[in-house]
Formats: sequence, structure tokens, C-alpha cells
Amino acid sequence: MNKTLVIGASGQIGQLITKALVETGEPVRALVRDKSKLAHLKSDELEVMEADLEGDFSRAFAGVSNVIFVAGSGGATGADKTLLIDLWASKKAVDYAKNNQVKQFIMLSSIGADNPDSIESDIKPYLVAKHMADQYLMASGVPYTIVRPGPLTNIEGQGKITIKRPNTRDEMAIPRADVAKSVLFILSKDNLNGKIFELFNGTYDVDNVLV
Amino acid sequence: MNKTLVIGASGQIGQLITKALVETGEPVRALVRDKSKLAHLKSDELEVMEADLEGDFSRAFAGVSNVIFVAGSGGATGADKTLLIDLWASKKAVDYAKNNQVKQFIMLSSIGADNPDSIESDIKPYLVAKHMADQYLMASGVPYTIVRPGPLTNIEGQGKITIKRPNTRDEMAIPRADVAKSVLFILSKDNLNGKIFELFNGTYDVDNVLV
Repeated sequence: MNKTLVIGASGQIGQLITKALVETGEPVRALVRDKSKLAHLKSDELEVMEADLEGDFSRAFAGVSNVIFVAGSGGATGADKTLLIDLWASKKAVDYAKNNQVKQFIMLSSIGADNPDSIESDIKPYLVAKHMADQYLMASGVPYTIVRPGPLTNIEGQGKITIKRPNTRDEMAIPRADVAKSVLFILSKDNLNGKIFELFNGTYDVDNVLV
Repeated sequence: MNKTLVIGASGQIGQLITKALVETGEPVRALVRDKSKLAHLKSDELEVMEADLEGDFSRAFAGVSNVIFVAGSGGATGADKTLLIDLWASKKAVDYAKNNQVKQFIMLSSIGADNPDSIESDIKPYLVAKHMADQYLMASGVPYTIVRPGPLTNIEGQGKITIKRPNTRDEMAIPRADVAKSVLFILSKDNLNGKIFELFNGTYDVDNVLV
């Protein structure tokens, strides 16, 4: 059975994705810096592997068919970590995926990563890193799907999204649970290679708009 | 006559290059954030243009044949500026150069930018930015030459270099004046496209090793 590697599995979206995959019974390798963060998830099909994304984590790709990259340096660290994790670890993951002939690479990106100049805000350096990481994946030859959600919230998932960018920033918000649901739907399909989806809270079922 | 655009002309290497170009009588456009920094250089062939590299500076490329990118965020600013200048402004410069069919793009990079993982140091985030900027240029289709000097010093130029990486970091140092001299030599040649040179203090004339 196809094994999925989740990079950044102890993050908020990473945990949602890993938990849902475990429940389907599919084999999952969850890459984390600290195993204890996934101690509450137990399954014969779940392999939790510790690795430092600032080092060499190529061994995580052995025997993997699908990769979900949901790692991020987070808002609490500086731009040096944005360069080392959001850009460089992502670049290395693409290289490893290519070397291991991965069949599907799903990248969690961000609204605005298509055009960092369009926004004058404190997160522009982050958007530059995500833009370059996305571009590297797109040019790599690795089959990819990129998702670019609006501002993430922790409200309960609605199970409904839209991929059409709304007019106001408030309307762009999306629950993390619905991003996870979208990623899992993409993982289940083999015809979404080369697609880039912006994701927002909306009124459509994922299978109606992620096409 | 071919016009050369120097991006980052008020930096230390930028000033050396701009001054030398002015002395040759070739037309130069010097891009700076603050014109007063080049007030000491006067020439009919020198056009000093103010621009913010964090904004749109495409107008600087009009009528330009050659581009020398020697801008850098410098050691005094944070990694957010590394992302915005060393990576993003460089990426934009390549896009502008491509749109304007520039014939030669000379990029000042850094030793270590070929493989940021080879060095565990505080400048790794910087090397990641330079690596990705160099890669973007190399993949752009714009004719390029990349120079990657060792640690820069302000001692007097010796006019002698080597492109073979020495064994110790001390031996890797190179005077800024000799980097400028190397860049000017590359600018004078039209057969160094696609080349990447590491640059160190050495015993060879530039025209003997930059081939």
C-alpha cells in the first residue's frame, strides 16, 4: 500500500492530517522533531520518525509514495528560521522526493505566495520564502499540488470551501480542519498534479471545487 | 555604446566598480537608495538613479546591456532583509533583465552559496538566500556569470587571484578591490556566460584564470 510521509506532523495542520490518515488505516510516516508530541496517536500503521529539518532528513523518504509538506518555522521564530525551514527544508524535501521518485508532493503554501509584492505587510519575507519554495517544486519535475489557504483559524471545520479569492481579508479565513480535509482529498486523487489551489472558507464540498 | 547598470552602487564593492567604470568612459547607470552617497563621483557618462530595491525598480533596466548585481542587505540588518534584498530583489532584477533582453548579468554571490549545508555557521540563512538567487538566475535564460568570493577584506588590492579553493578559511580571504577588478574583467569579455567562479587572494592575473 502507498506510504505517505507527513513532514511537520506535529504542527496544528500536521496533526489533523496525521490523525485522519491513521484513521483510514493507510501507512503513514510522521516526521517530527520531538516524538512525544505525537504520543497520543497510536496505530500499527503509524511510524513516527524524529528528524531535524535543518539537517539531512533524506532517510525519511525511503519507501514513500506521497509527501505532504506542512512544516513551518512558525510565527514565534525569526526570519533566519524562515530561510532555514520554510525555504531550505522545503527545497531539500523536493530534492529528496525527486531522488526517491515520489508520485505526489502536496505543499502547504500561503495566500500571497504567488505575488509577495502585492502585499505590504510584515509577512512579506515569509511570502518570499514560500514563493521561491513553490517555484522550486514547480520546476523540479516532481508531481505536485500546491494549496494556498487564507488566514488560518482554529474554529471548527465546516467541511465547505471555495477556491475563488474573496474580496475582503475577513472572508479569506479558513479553519485549519478544512485545510487538512482539502489536503486529504487531494492525496486521495491522482489527477490533481500540477494544480495550485487557493483555499478559503466557503459553501462548496471539496470534491466539487478541487478539480 | 553599451550601458552598464550597477545595482548596489553605493556599497563598498559597488563604489569600486562604479568608479572604475566611470574612469573608462563607458556609460554607467548607478542604482542607489540615496544619491548623496555617490556625490563624489562626477562624469557625463554616469547616471545616478535612486530606487528602493524593495519596490519596483524595473525602470532602471531601460536601455541597459549589462547588469552587475552587487547589492546586499549587509551584516547589520536581520534575516528579513536577507529575504527581501539578497533573495527577492535579486530575483526581481533577473526578471527585469530578462524582460529587457540584457546581454550579460554578473552576480556577486558568496563562497558557500553552492552548498549552504556544508557550513554550520550563522551565515547559513544568508547562503540559502544566495543559493536560491543564483539558481534562479541560472535557470532564467539570462546570460550570466556568477562570482563567489571568499571572506572580503579592505586591504589594498593585489591584482592577483586564484579560483581554486584553498584549504583554510584564512587563505580564502580576498580584497574587495580584487573582486571589483575580477567583475570588471568579466564585464569586458563576452565569452564567460554560464560560468561560476570562486574568487580568492592568489598569484594569478585575472585574465589568466577567469577563462
